[in-house]
This record gives sequence, structure tokens and C-alpha cells, in this order.
Amino acid sequence: MSQQITLSIDAMGGDNAPTMVVDGMALAMADIRDIRFHLFGDSTQLSELLSKYPLVAAATELHHTDDVVSNDEKPGVALRSGRQSSMRLAINAVGDGLAGGVVSAGNTGALMAMAKFVLKTLPGIDRPAIASYYPTMTGESVMLDLGANIQCDAENLVQFAVMGEVFARHVLHIEQPSIGILNVGTEVLKGNDSVKQAAAILRETHLPIKFHGFVEGDDIGKGTVDVIVTDGFTGNVALKTTEGTAKLFAGALKEELNKSPLRKLGALIAKPAIDAFRERFDPRRYNGAMFLGLNGICVKSHGGTDAFGFSNAIKAAHEMVSDDLNEGIKEDFARFNAEHHSFSSPSGEE
Amino acid sequence: MSQQITLSIDAMGGDNAPTMVVDGMALAMADIRDIRFHLFGDSTQLSELLSKYPLVAAATELHHTDDVVSNDEKPGVALRSGRQSSMRLAINAVGDGLAGGVVSAGNTGALMAMAKFVLKTLPGIDRPAIASYYPTMTGESVMLDLGANIQCDAENLVQFAVMGEVFARHVLHIEQPSIGILNVGTEVLKGNDSVKQAAAILRETHLPIKFHGFVEGDDIGKGTVDVIVTDGFTGNVALKTTEGTAKLFAGALKEELNKSPLRKLGALIAKPAIDAFRERFDPRRYNGAMFLGLNGICVKSHGGTDAFGFSNAIKAAHEMVSDDLNEGIKEDFARFNAEHHSFSSPSGEE
Repeated sequence: MSQQITLSIDAMGGDNAPTMVVDGMALAMADIRDIRFHLFGDSTQLSELLSKYPLVAAATELHHTDDVVSNDEKPGVALRSGRQSSMRLAINAVGDGLAGGVVSAGNTGALMAMAKFVLKTLPGIDRPAIASYYPTMTGESVMLDLGANIQCDAENLVQFAVMGEVFARHVLHIEQPSIGILNVGTEVLKGNDSVKQAAAILRETHLPIKFHGFVEGDDIGKGTVDVIVTDGFTGNVALKTTEGTAKLFAGALKEELNKSPLRKLGALIAKPAIDAFRERFDPRRYNGAMFLGLNGICVKSHGGTDAFGFSNAIKAAHEMVSDDLNEGIKEDFARFNAEHHSFSSPSGEE
Repeated sequence: MSQQITLSIDAMGGDNAPTMVVDGMALAMADIRDIRFHLFGDSTQLSELLSKYPLVAAATELHHTDDVVSNDEKPGVALRSGRQSSMRLAINAVGDGLAGGVVSAGNTGALMAMAKFVLKTLPGIDRPAIASYYPTMTGESVMLDLGANIQCDAENLVQFAVMGEVFARHVLHIEQPSIGILNVGTEVLKGNDSVKQAAAILRETHLPIKFHGFVEGDDIGKGTVDVIVTDGFTGNVALKTTEGTAKLFAGALKEELNKSPLRKLGALIAKPAIDAFRERFDPRRYNGAMFLGLNGICVKSHGGTDAFGFSNAIKAAHEMVSDDLNEGIKEDFARFNAEHHSFSSPSGEE
């Protein structure tokens, strides 16, 4: 765990960049001492911000660029015209082996397009996926894909399952993670063709994968499985629905607790409980959408986050690099593809 | 509002049937006096249960049947072999004009299959949808489809939009309801073909429909629009994700409030606030999935609900009948199809 890890940081992505980026680096360094940064962006602004944190400044190599990928830029346009952008240069640092992973709070589509172009996918993986972990009744789970792939076939879902399994093992440190495919019911016959075929493949595989079967939306919060596999459309809606429900509940609770002086008094006495409750579900704690399946670690921070949120995205990237996630994915895919193709080859022999 | 309405009730569907069904009828009658019931199920059990409630018994015509559709019965099997089931006879009562609507807490797939077979769809509607309303930051919204149609094309989504709009106007009494299509982003180019085409049709229609555009998962809780339109796969996952998040939060809040005597004291003082908060999101208040697009009102109660939940499903059916929802849908579809087909006819003339 004490190996030194270098991350490259896009300093200019996100609503509160670059201030929250540098503040976030400082917060992350308070927990992880043995880390170094390559920082890409406006060097005048960044030097000034870094001057507040001598330790961070000492661990950071600053790379100036004027160019920034804007939030409304189409991925294709960003890919062609953003070659000198802070985002692209930060990704290049991973491609060039200068850094083990990259963190950016910028435009998600542009980040995915550039990361795919520069880093390429790992052997055996057709499409990278976006994963995130989130709180459940029993601990933490990981869900993927959260929006990189709007339409997915069975093969894509199976690949997400294998990647998610490795992630849960390496990064969440769950010994034998259970995997579920998100569906509208748990019976074998439920759902569309993609989920039914993917489940059939995972049910038959001889890999040491603990396939639970289908799960439903309410299993996400329950923590029924450690890895939830779904297409990017459904996953994105499910993730944002959770966020919306969280905000709705937090707002309503606050409103009810402020309705009378007596209620306010009760809330004041119970404040540690309410604070602990809030903290448990603080979205900043779970900040960092992880791009899985690329030949390099790439974490997308929420664009609207603050320094605390950004520091958690840095920590997620740090953990994925130090836990050697991609080596694990490569190994499992080599095993999986060898086994998988022996029973589901397109020519039909069993 | 004081017209007398008759509903037919499947007494035998649901985990706690028939007790919670009869108790639920009694609870509903406490609010709605001018209602009558046709009740289908085991007459020995039901007579005994009704004997507790003379007023309900007086308003109820009891129809004996031994046959019950079980929860794991496939819809096709139920349709063929369940002709004398309490569910089927209750639906027949609507088809025969004896009742304005039917309520059942039984097997959803069987109920939809039987209701489609007996009642048929309204003119202009290809597929019925399952709708539910739910609490938001600003009030209440309605979402459809919640699972009747796993794969939907643009036409289906447009029909759901029109039905949802009529529902919001007639039943939620919103003068000009706004409509959004659930997607992974709000930009016009986001999403799969179905949502893009459906949005294009709704954007161009000259009907007095307030089409907001695309909404995301977090807009559900925000109440950004009054009607959320989605396919049955995504809608089902979103609905159940909300339920799961609600349970996760309620459980965590309770846990935190019980961690120390002082926290417990605070919770005790703030109890009215916490109770009010719980009540606001009590899923029993929003019990009742409404089948829209059928030539007759059909409400599916949650199978695991209690008498209070079942009474709300009865009230939802009562409101849909008394507000003449289906007349509204028929009128709007006549207008919509006349207008819609003039600019999107398959032959391609504009």
C-alpha cells in the first residue's frame, strides 16, 4: 500500500475549478501522503493556488495550457480540436506512462471519448463502462454502466459483470462478490433479450463468479448483491433517481424539523444523529465515476462538486491504481474469454 | 362528485387477502360514502369479515367463487384456466357494465392480461400502460409506463404522454400538466431512438400539450414535470429504485436516532416531525398502479399492502371513475390522432 503513485489531474474541469481541484488535492494528501501529481491548466492561477499548500506544491509538477474543454462541447469536437486542452494533456500523461491514472471534473462525454482514443480498451473488452459505488443497507456496492453505453447487448452486459466483479474484489475488497443483473423482476423469463441472454451466459459460466441472477430496483438500496450490472440508459436513470430521492427526502426532513420551535429543539438534541445520517449519504463521499475497461485508470468527478468531493475522486483513482485493478481485469478476461468462447462460440458448437 | 360509483373488488388477491381487502373497503367507505361494491371470492370467509362492518355489508353484493389466481401463475395460463377466478370475475363485472372499475392486489401480469382480454384497449391506443403517482418536492406527479411494456417504440411513448396528460388533468386536477420524457440527459441529441423520435413528435404536435422535453432521473423527485413518460423497463427500475432508496434512508435514520439515549430523547421531542416526514412518503399513500388505456378502469394494489394501502387503491379507482378519465382519454386521442397523422403519416408526406 505504500508504493508511490502518480496521478494526472485536469485542473480546469468542473464548476468550481481550478480552486476546488487544488483544494481537493490538498485534502486528499492529508490522507494519502505518498502521492504525486501532474497538474494541467492555467499555470498562473495554479501557482497562486498551490502557494497555499507547500506540501502539495512540492508533490506537483505543473504543466501550463490555455485550452479548456467546455461543458457543452460535443465529444467528437472535443476529440478533434481539444488536443492541447488540460483534459487531453492529463489523459496523455497516463498514456505516456507518466501517471497511473487521471482525474477530471470536466465534460463526461469528452473525457470518455478522449480516454478511449488515447488509452484504448483492455484486451477482450468492446466497450468501457462507467461505474460508481454507493451506500446500501449492508455496506457498499458497485453499479455499472451508468451512461457510457445507451444500448447494450448481452456480450456488453457480461463484460460489465466481469469488470464489476474484479472491481468489487480489488477495490471494495470483497472476497467473493455477488453479481446481479438489473431487471423488472427476478424470474428467469422476465426482461428484454439482452438481460435474458446475459444471465444465461453468466449462469452457465464455469468461472468462479458468484452470479446471483436478476435483481430489481429496490435491491440497489438493499445491497442484495455487490455488483449491479445494467445498460447505460437504465443505470443512469437509476443513479440519478437515487440522487433525486435523496434530495427530496433531505429537503422534506429539514422542512418538517423546522415547522415548530419544539420540533427544532428535538432536532437540535438529535443533531448528531441527523448529521451522521446526512454524512452517511453525502454524495460527495461517493464522488467519482470510474471508467472501467480502459488501458489506464480514469475517474470522472462530478462537475458540481467541491474540494471534499474532488478529494474523494482522487482517492478512488489512487485506490484503483494501487490495487492494480487493470491487471485483475486483464487476468479475468483472459480466463473468461478462454472459457466463455468454448461454450458460446458463434459457430454454435457446445 | 356525489354520483354513486360501483367498483368490483377481487377479494382474494394479495398477501393479506381477504382480510385486508374487506378492512380496506371499510376504510375507504369512511371517506367515500356514496360507493357500492361487487365483491368476488370465498363467500364464507367474506361474509364473516363483512359482519364486522354493517355499512359495508349493506353496500356490497357478494359473489362466491373458489378459484383464485396464484401469484406465480403465468399470465397466459391464468387467462386460459382462470375464467372462474375472483380476479377474472371482478374484471368481467366492469366489462359487463356492473361496475365502473376493478381493484385487485393479485398477480400483476395476470391482471393486465385478463383486463386487456376482457376490456380491450381504448380507440387509438396500441398498448395499455401502468401509471402511478408519487410525491415530489412540489406536490405530486404521475409516471408511466411502470412495467407493462418492456420495449417501447416512439409511438408507444407518445401514446403514454397523451394518456398521462389526461390523467394529470382529470385526476390530479392540474390545469395544464407539463410532460417530460425520461432520458440520460436533457439535450435533444441524447438517448436512444425511441425517446428521440417521441420527443420530436411531441415537440411538433399542435395539440395543447405542454411538452417540457427530456428529463433525468433526479427530475422525478424534483417534480420538474407533472407527467414522466418512459418505457416499462426503465420506469419499473426507477420506481423500485425510489422505493429502495426510501427504505434505505428510513432504516438509516432510525438506526442513527437510536444510537444513544440523548439522540433518542431528541427523536422523541422531534417525533411529530419524523412522523410527518414518514407519513409524507408512506408508500401506502401512493398505493395503486393504474392501468391506463383500457376500456374500463383497473387499479392494481401492491400485493403486500395492508388495509390502509388497499383503501387508497380503492380511492384511486373511485377518483378515476368519477373524474371520467376514460372519456377524457378518448376525446384527446380522437383529436391527437386526427392531428398527429396529418404530419407523421407513414407514407411520408408532410
